[in-house]
Amino acid sequence: MPYDVVTFGEAMIRLSPPNFRRLEQARSLDVQVGGAELNTAVGLARLGRSSAWVSRLTNNPLGRLIANHAREAGVSTEHMIWTSDDRVGLYFLEFGATPRASSVLYDRKNAAIASVRPGMIPWAAICAGTKWFHVTGITPGLSASAAATTKEALQTAKEAGVQTSVDLNYRAKLWSQTDAGRCMQELMPWCDVLITTEEDLERVFGIHGKSYDEAAERAAHRFKLKIVAITVRDNPLVWRNRWTAIAWRDGQVLRTREYELEIVDRLGAGDSFAAGLIHGLLDGDLQKGLDWGVAASALKHTIPGDFNWVTPDEVQAVLKGGELRISR
Amino acid sequence: MPYDVVTFGEAMIRLSPPNFRRLEQARSLDVQVGGAELNTAVGLARLGRSSAWVSRLTNNPLGRLIANHAREAGVSTEHMIWTSDDRVGLYFLEFGATPRASSVLYDRKNAAIASVRPGMIPWAAICAGTKWFHVTGITPGLSASAAATTKEALQTAKEAGVQTSVDLNYRAKLWSQTDAGRCMQELMPWCDVLITTEEDLERVFGIHGKSYDEAAERAAHRFKLKIVAITVRDNPLVWRNRWTAIAWRDGQVLRTREYELEIVDRLGAGDSFAAGLIHGLLDGDLQKGLDWGVAASALKHTIPGDFNWVTPDEVQAVLKGGELRISR
Amino acid sequence: MPYDVVTFGEAMIRLSPPNFRRLEQARSLDVQVGGAELNTAVGLARLGRSSAWVSRLTNNPLGRLIANHAREAGVSTEHMIWTSDDRVGLYFLEFGATPRASSVLYDRKNAAIASVRPGMIPWAAICAGTKWFHVTGITPGLSASAAATTKEALQTAKEAGVQTSVDLNYRAKLWSQTDAGRCMQELMPWCDVLITTEEDLERVFGIHGKSYDEAAERAAHRFKLKIVAITVRDNPLVWRNRWTAIAWRDGQVLRTREYELEIVDRLGAGDSFAAGLIHGLLDGDLQKGLDWGVAASALKHTIPGDFNWVTPDEVQAVLKGGELRISR
Amino acid sequence: MPYDVVTFGEAMIRLSPPNFRRLEQARSLDVQVGGAELNTAVGLARLGRSSAWVSRLTNNPLGRLIANHAREAGVSTEHMIWTSDDRVGLYFLEFGATPRASSVLYDRKNAAIASVRPGMIPWAAICAGTKWFHVTGITPGLSASAAATTKEALQTAKEAGVQTSVDLNYRAKLWSQTDAGRCMQELMPWCDVLITTEEDLERVFGIHGKSYDEAAERAAHRFKLKIVAITVRDNPLVWRNRWTAIAWRDGQVLRTREYELEIVDRLGAGDSFAAGLIHGLLDGDLQKGLDWGVAASALKHTIPGDFNWVTPDEVQAVLKGGELRISR
Amino acid sequence: MPYDVVTFGEAMIRLSPPNFRRLEQARSLDVQVGGAELNTAVGLARLGRSSAWVSRLTNNPLGRLIANHAREAGVSTEHMIWTSDDRVGLYFLEFGATPRASSVLYDRKNAAIASVRPGMIPWAAICAGTKWFHVTGITPGLSASAAATTKEALQTAKEAGVQTSVDLNYRAKLWSQTDAGRCMQELMPWCDVLITTEEDLERVFGIHGKSYDEAAERAAHRFKLKIVAITVRDNPLVWRNRWTAIAWRDGQVLRTREYELEIVDRLGAGDSFAAGLIHGLLDGDLQKGLDWGVAASALKHTIPGDFNWVTPDEVQAVLKGGELRISR
Amino acid sequence: MPYDVVTFGEAMIRLSPPNFRRLEQARSLDVQVGGAELNTAVGLARLGRSSAWVSRLTNNPLGRLIANHAREAGVSTEHMIWTSDDRVGLYFLEFGATPRASSVLYDRKNAAIASVRPGMIPWAAICAGTKWFHVTGITPGLSASAAATTKEALQTAKEAGVQTSVDLNYRAKLWSQTDAGRCMQELMPWCDVLITTEEDLERVFGIHGKSYDEAAERAAHRFKLKIVAITVRDNPLVWRNRWTAIAWRDGQVLRTREYELEIVDRLGAGDSFAAGLIHGLLDGDLQKGLDWGVAASALKHTIPGDFNWVTPDEVQAVLKGGELRISR
Repeated sequence: MPYDVVTFGEAMIRLSPPNFRRLEQARSLDVQVGGAELNTAVGLARLGRSSAWVSRLTNNPLGRLIANHAREAGVSTEHMIWTSDDRVGLYFLEFGATPRASSVLYDRKNAAIASVRPGMIPWAAICAGTKWFHVTGITPGLSASAAATTKEALQTAKEAGVQTSVDLNYRAKLWSQTDAGRCMQELMPWCDVLITTEEDLERVFGIHGKSYDEAAERAAHRFKLKIVAITVRDNPLVWRNRWTAIAWRDGQVLRTREYELEIVDRLGAGDSFAAGLIHGLLDGDLQKGLDWGVAASALKHTIPGDFNWVTPDEVQAVLKGGELRISR
Repeated sequence: MPYDVVTFGEAMIRLSPPNFRRLEQARSLDVQVGGAELNTAVGLARLGRSSAWVSRLTNNPLGRLIANHAREAGVSTEHMIWTSDDRVGLYFLEFGATPRASSVLYDRKNAAIASVRPGMIPWAAICAGTKWFHVTGITPGLSASAAATTKEALQTAKEAGVQTSVDLNYRAKLWSQTDAGRCMQELMPWCDVLITTEEDLERVFGIHGKSYDEAAERAAHRFKLKIVAITVRDNPLVWRNRWTAIAWRDGQVLRTREYELEIVDRLGAGDSFAAGLIHGLLDGDLQKGLDWGVAASALKHTIPGDFNWVTPDEVQAVLKGGELRISR
Repeated sequence: MPYDVVTFGEAMIRLSPPNFRRLEQARSLDVQVGGAELNTAVGLARLGRSSAWVSRLTNNPLGRLIANHAREAGVSTEHMIWTSDDRVGLYFLEFGATPRASSVLYDRKNAAIASVRPGMIPWAAICAGTKWFHVTGITPGLSASAAATTKEALQTAKEAGVQTSVDLNYRAKLWSQTDAGRCMQELMPWCDVLITTEEDLERVFGIHGKSYDEAAERAAHRFKLKIVAITVRDNPLVWRNRWTAIAWRDGQVLRTREYELEIVDRLGAGDSFAAGLIHGLLDGDLQKGLDWGVAASALKHTIPGDFNWVTPDEVQAVLKGGELRISR
Repeated sequence: MPYDVVTFGEAMIRLSPPNFRRLEQARSLDVQVGGAELNTAVGLARLGRSSAWVSRLTNNPLGRLIANHAREAGVSTEHMIWTSDDRVGLYFLEFGATPRASSVLYDRKNAAIASVRPGMIPWAAICAGTKWFHVTGITPGLSASAAATTKEALQTAKEAGVQTSVDLNYRAKLWSQTDAGRCMQELMPWCDVLITTEEDLERVFGIHGKSYDEAAERAAHRFKLKIVAITVRDNPLVWRNRWTAIAWRDGQVLRTREYELEIVDRLGAGDSFAAGLIHGLLDGDLQKGLDWGVAASALKHTIPGDFNWVTPDEVQAVLKGGELRISR
Repeated sequence: MPYDVVTFGEAMIRLSPPNFRRLEQARSLDVQVGGAELNTAVGLARLGRSSAWVSRLTNNPLGRLIANHAREAGVSTEHMIWTSDDRVGLYFLEFGATPRASSVLYDRKNAAIASVRPGMIPWAAICAGTKWFHVTGITPGLSASAAATTKEALQTAKEAGVQTSVDLNYRAKLWSQTDAGRCMQELMPWCDVLITTEEDLERVFGIHGKSYDEAAERAAHRFKLKIVAITVRDNPLVWRNRWTAIAWRDGQVLRTREYELEIVDRLGAGDSFAAGLIHGLLDGDLQKGLDWGVAASALKHTIPGDFNWVTPDEVQAVLKGGELRISR
Repeated sequence: MPYDVVTFGEAMIRLSPPNFRRLEQARSLDVQVGGAELNTAVGLARLGRSSAWVSRLTNNPLGRLIANHAREAGVSTEHMIWTSDDRVGLYFLEFGATPRASSVLYDRKNAAIASVRPGMIPWAAICAGTKWFHVTGITPGLSASAAATTKEALQTAKEAGVQTSVDLNYRAKLWSQTDAGRCMQELMPWCDVLITTEEDLERVFGIHGKSYDEAAERAAHRFKLKIVAITVRDNPLVWRNRWTAIAWRDGQVLRTREYELEIVDRLGAGDSFAAGLIHGLLDGDLQKGLDWGVAASALKHTIPGDFNWVTPDEVQAVLKGGELRISR
């Protein structure tokens, strides 16, 4: 079945101690599922788009739990590569509070997705009829074969006429800036839309500018990108941030509202921005994408877990300048 | 047994997902009991007044749970009308965070109270010896027969020399502004004290003014009310508000302190204001009522559930300008 | 997309106090989703069959939660009829212990499914390519229009060459034995396989025999059924039962192993028997159906919630006479 | 207000680790309220009798919590002696499993009730119109002044024509068998009904017999008691017991059914037997008292906490030989 | 085994209702262990110092739980005085929110430590090889014999060449300002480093100044102290504070950074400041002590419970001006 | 510091869904720590013996959590080898119920202990003064270098005059029976006491007999062992077992009582038997070791987690034939 959007990458089981306990204090761990590309697929499904997430998972209770959660949130797992080898990646999340940042302890080595390799996934069949393909810089950072498979996917998608987006998503715990830069640059020819932060542009591509606008423009020019979107976070405190984004296209910069946030869980916020952006672009409307991307991801900050359990009505209400009183 | 205060209305079982989860994410629901008039009866019991709450409940575990909670908080349920018919009302509460408001999903149709009708409750006996009767605009909004019973109650109370108060409490999910306006206006002749917000005055009676004071005065004049109290909330964020109230009597407006609030749960705040106000008025002291009403309801914002589990000592400590250090 | 099995009926949100608390003691409620026909669809999906569940749900967070849980467990909800009317059914479950039985408090009146009516669901399209259709006596018991829709569904299925099964599932809280008998008897002409208990045969059809075998045979003869399966529970205690089933076909009675059970949650056990039975019959093997039905449902008793979260490997291990030691 | 039954004694906050954790493993403690005489008052309220519990409590959140729970369960606390002195008693309960018994760690020294003394409680006023007064051997075991107050209460009750019952309830952690024997014997002249176990008769009074019947008769003869009731527990395992009781009156021994029990929480079982017994005796029917006492307390074993959250309907269903299937 | 630091005092089991519930609403209580001197010993162990905590505990599950938690956090309990007498102290903690302060209800009377007396603890042996001894004003406030034992300990330590620190820690619920002043003044001759707040200097010693600096200097001069450290808290709200400290030595005042805090749990913050201060002073570096004391205790505010579960790396990261983004 | 007993092996973080949920249903996981040799060290510490556990752990929050738990339970971690490499092993535990066995999903590959190699641990220093060394067949099964290190440890211990015990503990998920047999046989020359089950004797060494006695004797003869102990479990159900053990020495077989068990958590039962056995043998009393081993491990079955949180008094009470009534 063709989908509006297909994404490709790892998802892990996320384990976090409740009530601000530190990991050393944990006597129970809350279970969520998260992974950048899955999060974006969920964000799109929740906005009403059909989406599928492609990955490789070990067929044990942990792997099935991940696929179950994807389906629960409306994402198809029909293209999953199941294996009896390898393991399921985990990450441990500790919530901080000013002056202590939240922190993440990855335990993702030897996960099944790291052994994915070109030829393993039937990209041509998956891309047939699909409108959009999305991936982030995490997937190629997992292993050399995952990087090759990412390239294979992007090439196949572009050749099939699918639009593509890449979120840089640099992870220092996965690879060096140099390695990331070399690899990501090779993917850019098959990328229509680049999504990133100012910081990641600097770290991965060494691109910076006097403003977000200039940084976006430089990236667009260097890699001949159609669109560059940059999310902007102001975080004077752990639990109170301000959040917006800009988007560059054809020398023009589009803006949208900035949101004051009382944060519940900021994991997956960038991924839900990508979902909103793609949602608008599927309608051929970049301003809508920027508006929906920022509004949807502003809402994501208020929701536990990596997934953005919003509805289109709720995003629209925020876009209209929603009321903070209880509706009754 | 005669009571200082009798209130009349619905209480529901309140179900809310813990830890800011959305309802779709809920794997457990916290159970509380709430209802505007019960909340006010609880607020009065906690301030040392004897109070009874009159309602109609289905005699099953859910109905008994509601009555149990009322008694636990010090409120008499001896005048409860028990029935084996109908069902127990529920409401689902989802806590939000900026920019997402908290929201309420009512599932209260066909609750036992909606079938209450004139003649079912022995108002004359209940009013004998009682000092104060309180009801809100929710009760008449439940059904035509509940509206008729509310009118019957207010009339019987007034004729028995009981003082009366009405909190407008407009609920758009129950009835239209037009219907509410028509019905509430019919109740005003038997109302001594009107409690409301500026917004509800506008929505129900189409009354507004250049200031809270003017709005209160207009309402007082139109309905020949002795006292009109208006609560004032400033909510730039979901979890940080400012809170105060004014009270109009005989052309004069009384004021009290404004409180900065770190909110834990704002449900029932207005109802606990009513409790404090009535508490003062039972002593014949409107300024005390305003002071205690705002201080008690400021404290309510810091307490989970709809009930205001404070003590008179705690209200007095806040009135004296309490210290935020831990007392030890 | 055609499915191996389609089922039709109500699912409710199930709310149960943890740790054997009574409802009056509940301060939190565990959330599960359950409904006889959904449970069977889940059971089939877990055994590897493609299945879809057809129902009508109110499009609010509670309705979406039900559909999410169905998809999480592998069941398609693509044929769901979404509405903005009516409400979502609930049931409250209290776990007992000898000498107190577990008990259920339904709050399902006015649920969206009760308003389903013929013509609302595109049965012909749904049946195209489908191999099996399953429904229980609960669905027609919900309302007259639901009964008519059930009949419409069975007729359409039979005419489309789909095999059908009906689980009698008598619910005294829904309708009288007389009403149930009259209605269910009208459905029998379109039923291939009847699944029931000896007790329900007696209550609904007034059929009894000196043995399970005789009762099955009488039912088969009266309604010209191909197969009659009867589950047999021996429950001297609430948390320790013995469990098996028999199946009649063409005058012959098939048997399978009896299981000793340490029960964790017996809700949905009969529905998971139906799933296993249909699983075998889809392979044309009644003995396999009986074996898998009883083994799968024996396992169901050890799993919290209404859904049978087993794998085919686990059912096979039990069928081979599984070991109770921890495998490591 | 006169009550059917008044009881007098201590209640404590009960703290128990969930999920069979040992106290050293506890990271949270479940909170319940319990105390022999309060438990009996609750048992009577739940069976439909009006009951009040008299005690002395420190007026802090812990003391109020105890009174709140009493009222929640339907027991009046209007005769509570509130004090700002002393402390609130606690007990820590650890659930065992064969071969480890459940165990109790008391932290009840210096609780407010231990300082109760004659003259502090207006017994004459309380007894006016009351039908029954109940106390156990725990109250006099708390302190010499509590023992004197118990005697004062029993005397006043008897002189006011109130019927009285005493449950021996020997607590080795409170006092020696010798001290208990001397004290309890002094109370017997004012006792109509003695409730106990064979073991306590031996420990407190040195009374034993070749059978329960003989032991009961010897106690009745020694103290000239109208009725002696003995509960009988067979506990080969921690979580599976058998339970019944006998009652001696005028040389005759009455019996009732023995119950097989799957235990959830056996604390308060004896106290709920006393409630059922008194319930029957208030109707002048000892056989009813014995039947209801054993049936109600059999149900108590299946309910968490010390209180017996049953309904009269449920007791009657068990008396009729209730079904263990789920009623639906 | 000699330790870097030995501390002496009481630790209690801390019981707090979760999720901002009031004690009257508590149905479960979270269990932590806390006590000023134990908290400081934990703070030191977590910074890499060997530390032992000396106390007297009842040998029951609650007493063992306290010792277990001390060892879990890296503190030696080898010098514990175990007894079968007395009881284990408890304290109940209720988390507030503006305008309601958090509050503490102590239930510590008759704890084993209150019966400690001179000669009971082998101070000379404990001090041999130890570098630092720390105690607070809580220990002498527990009882006269505890005060005498505190004096004995300080004297023995000083005579053995151990450096000493005293945190004033005035507890109004334990003793009057006059009693505290008289007692603490007697301890000053054996104190090298005084740790306190401006408020406690005033309450215990009647010392105040126009500035923190002046107050510190006056205290230093009056008691001939080497070092006086004062912590400074600005708390306009319950959950948002600013936090720093100063240290006076030889007429000079040292300062360090002020931290903005999002508070999770402020109990034990002062104790963790003492740990950081001593940590620096063991290196002979007061500025390091002040820097580490304030940074470590700033982090403590973000951690549930009384213990400061940080690592030296985390303190250093904050000292370097840590980033609030999630590190990944 | 010399210890009574030193053990060597892996401990993992154990994650299990609460309330019998399956892993796929888990929304939270309970955290415990377990590992055969650590469990035995804990068992000995709880019986009053000084014990240390030697292992290799990654120095992150998860590794520290494991060491913290060891110390909490009284076990020294001073000989821990900390590393910044590798990862911390995990295992997921799912509790079953008849007819579904509990199951374990290991995620222990690449844990720090697997990279331990000869020369890394200062065995000679550790063994100096130590009385007993214990290891199980899991440690050599982790990797070739771990096997070599195990051999190094046993040899060093024997040469230092330390008594040694080995628990066969065959884990099919770690290695084949052939590999285990070859490796374990090489360790036998340095083993004084072999602890095992009949099943493991067969699987690892191919030894079986007509009785437990004969199997023990054959093992003793083949490897010239002083003592062979065999634990015997009868498990007709998952939650009800019978449990005992025998011990062979010098041609004689000692026996002890068999216990009826209501199981709460059987993980670590065998390890706690080893602890009790060694406890007796440290007193030179094999019968005591057998009695204490079986009694202590019978109690272990009633305690959540892998650790045996008993006291010597509790073991003695069971040995004397403890009462199942609540002691009060």
